[in-house]
Amino acid sequence: MPDSAILLIHCPDRKGIVATISSFLYSFEANILHADQHQDRDLGLFFMRIEWDLKDFSLDDAGFRAAFTPLALEFEMRWELAYSAARPAVAIFVSRYQHCLLDLLYRHQVGELRCSIPLIVSNHADAGDLARFYGIPFRHLAVENKAETERAQLTLLAEHGVSLVVLARYMQVLSPEFVAHYPQRIINVHHSFLPAFSGARPYHAAYQRGVKVIGATSHYVTEELDEGPIIEQDVLRVSHRDQVDDLVEKGRDLERVVLSRAVRWHLDHRILHYAGKTVIFD
Amino acid sequence: MPDSAILLIHCPDRKGIVATISSFLYSFEANILHADQHQDRDLGLFFMRIEWDLKDFSLDDAGFRAAFTPLALEFEMRWELAYSAARPAVAIFVSRYQHCLLDLLYRHQVGELRCSIPLIVSNHADAGDLARFYGIPFRHLAVENKAETERAQLTLLAEHGVSLVVLARYMQVLSPEFVAHYPQRIINVHHSFLPAFSGARPYHAAYQRGVKVIGATSHYVTEELDEGPIIEQDVLRVSHRDQVDDLVEKGRDLERVVLSRAVRWHLDHRILHYAGKTVIFD
Amino acid sequence: MPDSAILLIHCPDRKGIVATISSFLYSFEANILHADQHQDRDLGLFFMRIEWDLKDFSLDDAGFRAAFTPLALEFEMRWELAYSAARPAVAIFVSRYQHCLLDLLYRHQVGELRCSIPLIVSNHADAGDLARFYGIPFRHLAVENKAETERAQLTLLAEHGVSLVVLARYMQVLSPEFVAHYPQRIINVHHSFLPAFSGARPYHAAYQRGVKVIGATSHYVTEELDEGPIIEQDVLRVSHRDQVDDLVEKGRDLERVVLSRAVRWHLDHRILHYAGKTVIFD
Amino acid sequence: MPDSAILLIHCPDRKGIVATISSFLYSFEANILHADQHQDRDLGLFFMRIEWDLKDFSLDDAGFRAAFTPLALEFEMRWELAYSAARPAVAIFVSRYQHCLLDLLYRHQVGELRCSIPLIVSNHADAGDLARFYGIPFRHLAVENKAETERAQLTLLAEHGVSLVVLARYMQVLSPEFVAHYPQRIINVHHSFLPAFSGARPYHAAYQRGVKVIGATSHYVTEELDEGPIIEQDVLRVSHRDQVDDLVEKGRDLERVVLSRAVRWHLDHRILHYAGKTVIFD
Repeated sequence: MPDSAILLIHCPDRKGIVATISSFLYSFEANILHADQHQDRDLGLFFMRIEWDLKDFSLDDAGFRAAFTPLALEFEMRWELAYSAARPAVAIFVSRYQHCLLDLLYRHQVGELRCSIPLIVSNHADAGDLARFYGIPFRHLAVENKAETERAQLTLLAEHGVSLVVLARYMQVLSPEFVAHYPQRIINVHHSFLPAFSGARPYHAAYQRGVKVIGATSHYVTEELDEGPIIEQDVLRVSHRDQVDDLVEKGRDLERVVLSRAVRWHLDHRILHYAGKTVIFD
Repeated sequence: MPDSAILLIHCPDRKGIVATISSFLYSFEANILHADQHQDRDLGLFFMRIEWDLKDFSLDDAGFRAAFTPLALEFEMRWELAYSAARPAVAIFVSRYQHCLLDLLYRHQVGELRCSIPLIVSNHADAGDLARFYGIPFRHLAVENKAETERAQLTLLAEHGVSLVVLARYMQVLSPEFVAHYPQRIINVHHSFLPAFSGARPYHAAYQRGVKVIGATSHYVTEELDEGPIIEQDVLRVSHRDQVDDLVEKGRDLERVVLSRAVRWHLDHRILHYAGKTVIFD
Repeated sequence: MPDSAILLIHCPDRKGIVATISSFLYSFEANILHADQHQDRDLGLFFMRIEWDLKDFSLDDAGFRAAFTPLALEFEMRWELAYSAARPAVAIFVSRYQHCLLDLLYRHQVGELRCSIPLIVSNHADAGDLARFYGIPFRHLAVENKAETERAQLTLLAEHGVSLVVLARYMQVLSPEFVAHYPQRIINVHHSFLPAFSGARPYHAAYQRGVKVIGATSHYVTEELDEGPIIEQDVLRVSHRDQVDDLVEKGRDLERVVLSRAVRWHLDHRILHYAGKTVIFD
Repeated sequence: MPDSAILLIHCPDRKGIVATISSFLYSFEANILHADQHQDRDLGLFFMRIEWDLKDFSLDDAGFRAAFTPLALEFEMRWELAYSAARPAVAIFVSRYQHCLLDLLYRHQVGELRCSIPLIVSNHADAGDLARFYGIPFRHLAVENKAETERAQLTLLAEHGVSLVVLARYMQVLSPEFVAHYPQRIINVHHSFLPAFSGARPYHAAYQRGVKVIGATSHYVTEELDEGPIIEQDVLRVSHRDQVDDLVEKGRDLERVVLSRAVRWHLDHRILHYAGKTVIFD
């Protein structure tokens, strides 16, 4: 894979956006690798992801920002520029269940996730061995006083320059204050197909209701529990034979896949969010 | 397929049920074609479906009932006996959308559904042509006064000896009085994966929430809207590209399959219900 | 949905293609509704689908062709231009099984398929009633002498200006001569997940092999049986309980969906083919 | 979960089998937990899995065998008896790719797999760290002389009393002699939906053919490569955007799930095989 730059754009829809951006990039020798766009016609919005090879590109980061800013102002764009070579720092929060953590660490090891993982935080000691096996610093912070714990967590995140927090079955609700520090940069996995069975013990509720399909949902965390923009969902068939324990077990296979996909797409800059929803460029 | 009898049983769990029933059937020369059982260990309940070839079987219907009743009393069974050769009368209720109706009529025509369909009822005239093409009597009953309409519907159902009512996207809520006439004998399809998006306009709600998966649910109708025992569910992936109209269109393929499976399983006597849930013997 | 034009492009990959095309369209006041591109980096190929609103667009068809041709020559493009308002003529070939035919006719009736259907051809009389119900001319051409029958078929297709032939479980193999008249314009559905179980009686072969998943495949017809570019595939789980008849029955639900999607994507100009494969723009 | 016994039966179909077996078990105070049966009517065969609680059961293993043998002879049964408390020894063979190994070790650790794993064998040293982390003895046996290596492997398996060999992406073909030592006791995962793309490099072949669905298959190993009875299959959608590397990556998620399910079902004594196929009791 070549070194590339990725531009994500969000602006009011109007004629000429694609022509303007692609001509701009072409004038600096960009070789476009991938481009995708989306319009919300009801809201009159335009979204774009465009990725180009940096090999012949004649602008460095500062140069790009200087040259692109007037254009972005003209089109009232919200935009962000990222580089495939960058490895943003990701912190993983975990409680006792380790299946999602293990999945993330394995995928990171084999190169599926473009990030560094400088920190695993847990309110239990259990995941320490696994963290050490994968060579990731592990911090056990018991939650006695939630406000204090969150302050300690935020300090750790800041020290490690963390830009994405992944809740890999972290069984604590984060305060709105904490969430406000990482807007659209905390990804959680909930063990149901939201909006069904939000809140506690979704597998028990699913068993009780007698559903024939169970699901899992990864989403950005917002102030309101289980209400953030959905990134990915997947489901599995179940039957009357499945007891709650079976749902829990089968659900593990869903949770890890659904969370890992979300983390990967975030790191590949494939996600835009607006109006409480996500656009996933593929 | 041979002519067969099907026995559905529901009783407190205890030792010897299978031995007793299978010995009973064996003593009258039954050749068992299919048997399946289920236990709910929390509630201490036993469920069984057993199907046997009638060829060598030495009891007729009255004989079976006489011989089996003492045994059923001993084990406190709720039971029902059915015959594969029977063709129970099914009425289909429909409004404007005809995809579920068409699917049921086609499956009936090619022999997938073991029933007669003596009656299609609609609050619109639209489906009349389709009914006539498949040679099914069609009754257009506009819903002006709901109580009156329901009385007329109930009269029609009684006249035709209907034992199962299928709501094939019938956009009217039936009154508790109506439902009470057909307990666990009205099947509805709801265009979401319940319990998510119960009530009106589920595709709009799904679009609004930004889900990545849409679903459909078939269920027995009870007094409480969208709360009856779930029979079948299925789902389809969607993306940010799908507008409400796309969800409606894709959903049609789900609805017809999910409803037809439920009707078929009901007619094949594969469904037991208890505690607000279903057991589907396969 | 607005009246729109769709441009499909296929050319050697090089810098500036997107900039050139989008600037060209912008200069004639096109409001782009949808654009998607794909590169095959191994083969150095570029593919694009771009759709724009015709409302403000200042070129008519002849004007577009005159203005675009120099550009197309410069980039060595193969291209085609289509209009959403056009309703190309589609002929459906069918034998005895009518589930795929019924599905196509229903979807056509409710507006899912942007085409006219001036002709249904069959080597059996069975589908005549269904054709008449949907108001489509039906021609029964028994296949006694294949060469003669194909000549008659080709004459009919020419008379009706047919541009796409859909084989909706048409159980005859078309000759290479026939296929040569409609290159990449004949769509077939095969009742297995190709390349598994190509040829005759795939459900029997799947049953024999004991697979746990069955599938269906829609593809463009080429000279070599079941070897054309795959457009769509889908699968269903099966188990040891499913006899060949059950596979046939379950398979019907796959076949109709897989074929209808292919026809729709073709009519929406979403398919490009190259190197024996398809690109499906979504 | 209670301590239980599981009886698997395979015999010519005739009347009275279920009655005989269930009466037999009832006479020794068995409380049946689960029973499932299957008939192959074409071949006239009967299959059964029956599981009962050992708590009140009045026969020990020897007693059961003594009492049941006459009955088994009468019905010409092939049968096997197993106990849920047993932990058969499983050896895992692996090459360089570790995703399937990791998945098995994690599931073993959390209790999903009822077995001991006394041995991991590899023709590469790579998996040694992972084996040590999970506390499993690891043997690196480079394959220079295949016959010699297989002799060394067979000695190891015998020493550890191994009753099931799992090929977790072991990239060597076992000789017929090796296979003959573990009939229906070697489980392999192949990275395609067999019978499509058997043999080497299935993802390359799938890419070349342009399929829209990829799969993985777990099966018992027989003398003929990729021809053994299929235990489980699963699939994932792919598109023209997926390069071979993407198929490999997505396929990993399929392979691990498909292999782990097969191992689990084998250990739970849910699998019967006959005529080159499997019955999976659920």
